[in-house]
Amino acid sequence: MKRTKVVDALQSTDFGNEILVKGWVRSHRSSKAVDFIALNDGSTIKNIQIVVDPSTIEADKLKSITTGACIGVVGTLVESQGAGQTSEVQSKEIEIYGLCPNDYPMQKKGQSFEYMRQYAHMRLRTNTFGAVMRIRHNMAIAVHKYFHEHGFYYFHTPLITASDAEGAGEMFQVTTLDLDRVAKEGKVEYSKDFFGKKTNLTVSGQLEGELGATALGAIYTFGPTFRAENSNTPRHLAEFWMIEPEVAFMDKDELMDLEEDFIKYCVRWALDNCKDDLEFLNKMIDKNLLNTLENVIKEDFVRLPYTEGIEILKKAAEMVISSNSQSQAGDGSCFRA
Amino acid sequence: MKRTKVVDALQSTDFGNEILVKGWVRSHRSSKAVDFIALNDGSTIKNIQIVVDPSTIEADKLKSITTGACIGVVGTLVESQGAGQTSEVQSKEIEIYGLCPNDYPMQKKGQSFEYMRQYAHMRLRTNTFGAVMRIRHNMAIAVHKYFHEHGFYYFHTPLITASDAEGAGEMFQVTTLDLDRVAKEGKVEYSKDFFGKKTNLTVSGQLEGELGATALGAIYTFGPTFRAENSNTPRHLAEFWMIEPEVAFMDKDELMDLEEDFIKYCVRWALDNCKDDLEFLNKMIDKNLLNTLENVIKEDFVRLPYTEGIEILKKAAEMVISSNSQSQAGDGSCFRA
Repeated sequence: MKRTKVVDALQSTDFGNEILVKGWVRSHRSSKAVDFIALNDGSTIKNIQIVVDPSTIEADKLKSITTGACIGVVGTLVESQGAGQTSEVQSKEIEIYGLCPNDYPMQKKGQSFEYMRQYAHMRLRTNTFGAVMRIRHNMAIAVHKYFHEHGFYYFHTPLITASDAEGAGEMFQVTTLDLDRVAKEGKVEYSKDFFGKKTNLTVSGQLEGELGATALGAIYTFGPTFRAENSNTPRHLAEFWMIEPEVAFMDKDELMDLEEDFIKYCVRWALDNCKDDLEFLNKMIDKNLLNTLENVIKEDFVRLPYTEGIEILKKAAEMVISSNSQSQAGDGSCFRA
Repeated sequence: MKRTKVVDALQSTDFGNEILVKGWVRSHRSSKAVDFIALNDGSTIKNIQIVVDPSTIEADKLKSITTGACIGVVGTLVESQGAGQTSEVQSKEIEIYGLCPNDYPMQKKGQSFEYMRQYAHMRLRTNTFGAVMRIRHNMAIAVHKYFHEHGFYYFHTPLITASDAEGAGEMFQVTTLDLDRVAKEGKVEYSKDFFGKKTNLTVSGQLEGELGATALGAIYTFGPTFRAENSNTPRHLAEFWMIEPEVAFMDKDELMDLEEDFIKYCVRWALDNCKDDLEFLNKMIDKNLLNTLENVIKEDFVRLPYTEGIEILKKAAEMVISSNSQSQAGDGSCFRA
């Protein structure tokens, strides 16, 4: 029997049909007459409710299905009685793929991000991280769709490089030299390094991107970028994905048109394709999220003359410094993911 | 006046209309009555022919427009008289953006790849590299489209890592330690390195991908991967882009179905979207290219039992070794780009 994804089962109205759903248990409530298992398979933030008649399953087996357990359920798709639900599954048979010990770290809802850092390998199973990853996926797809439809070629620039792209930031060194040997012999011989010279992780694909644009007309990079800046702030990452479009024969107004259109396209894509995840984040993380996104689409972007923009940036920088937080200055020519 | 891309100008039948095209000169032939300039802007492998009446332009200016020069041309789109061409531009006015010295390295057609390695910054302007980059772009788009349409989430796994993913290959070390200082002080203190421990460039996102798949259901990675294997063969790259799908709740047959369908989808996408570039490569590089691609789509993939497959792989490996070339063994679970 072919598996039905939870996202599809929830949208289906083929009530009475037998289906097979698989996933990880989010919660399991028991009563005398009926058990409710909330099952999630990552295809959507929503769980599908599995309704179990305890007389149809061995008591010990049913009891063992705790939060985090991985199961498959064959059952009948029925119209849900619960508010805000469309369909649920009346269980006929449950197969256990993996049980979960009682010390599963995500027993309860609402753990802090800091707590979850201890369980980095598990946190993708939380609503928040799941939502963020599905939205991140959709944003990447929107980026590729947009540029493809606008005649830009996706361009993979080297990650390991011997150049430093206009000194955009502190760099990580990349080497195959044996550091213990370097220490023992008391000398660094770059002639013996992998590329025969000192190499680093790129801080930007810009230089290669410009070569691409002046040959292919219009390119964009979308790949990992590295900054070895030792700043432990939420705004700094040593490794992040950055988008850098480079285009020939385009003036500043056309470029601003492109930037505005691109951002609006991506935001619209998110609103159209990530509704459930955005609604969750709007409820739990930032009550202004949806409003802000709707506004980005509705409003025309203000365009500032360069000198005026510099003044505003300076003032913003002073505000940031005076609030004793650290911000990263960008050159305005790239988008970060 | 808005620029028209060469790819659009060549498909246009709005003969008599005035258009503006911009690009780089591929060739310039002069005669007494008329000059022909082949102009390329990277949007297609094809050039658009600019027909210049020498009486409409200063003689010195016309003469200065040599191969590699960057120009903009306003002119009338006319139906081409030449065989295999649809439209050309009857020049009214030429603007020179940049001239090209006589020692431009790509004066003639048909330079060797080895020769072009000396001009890596220029070779994207050749037909072959342009074709390869446009096809590479289209293959990346096909990869994202396929997985998106099949419910896989694009998943960015860490590039800098302290793990070594099942020992898949030799690794590059990533460090912010000052190597000269390591040599001088005679000791390596990883506690003072950026992450407080020894770190490397990833050889695979597989381990993180598995965490993604067991939370989101189905993910794929598509990012740079690194192998510090010192093998100078055409089959080895220190840095390459690799696709690694990881999926929960899928058996081997479904996985093989997916792999076959995925490869056929990408090949079909290439045939549908890269016709001109593939025809060029078929003519100049590999006369079997188009045939091979058509066959990949037409034929069912042979599926071998594991043990039989191992025997065939062993024989293939012996053949490779006996022909004294080096090949890289894959675990069959990932696609490389």
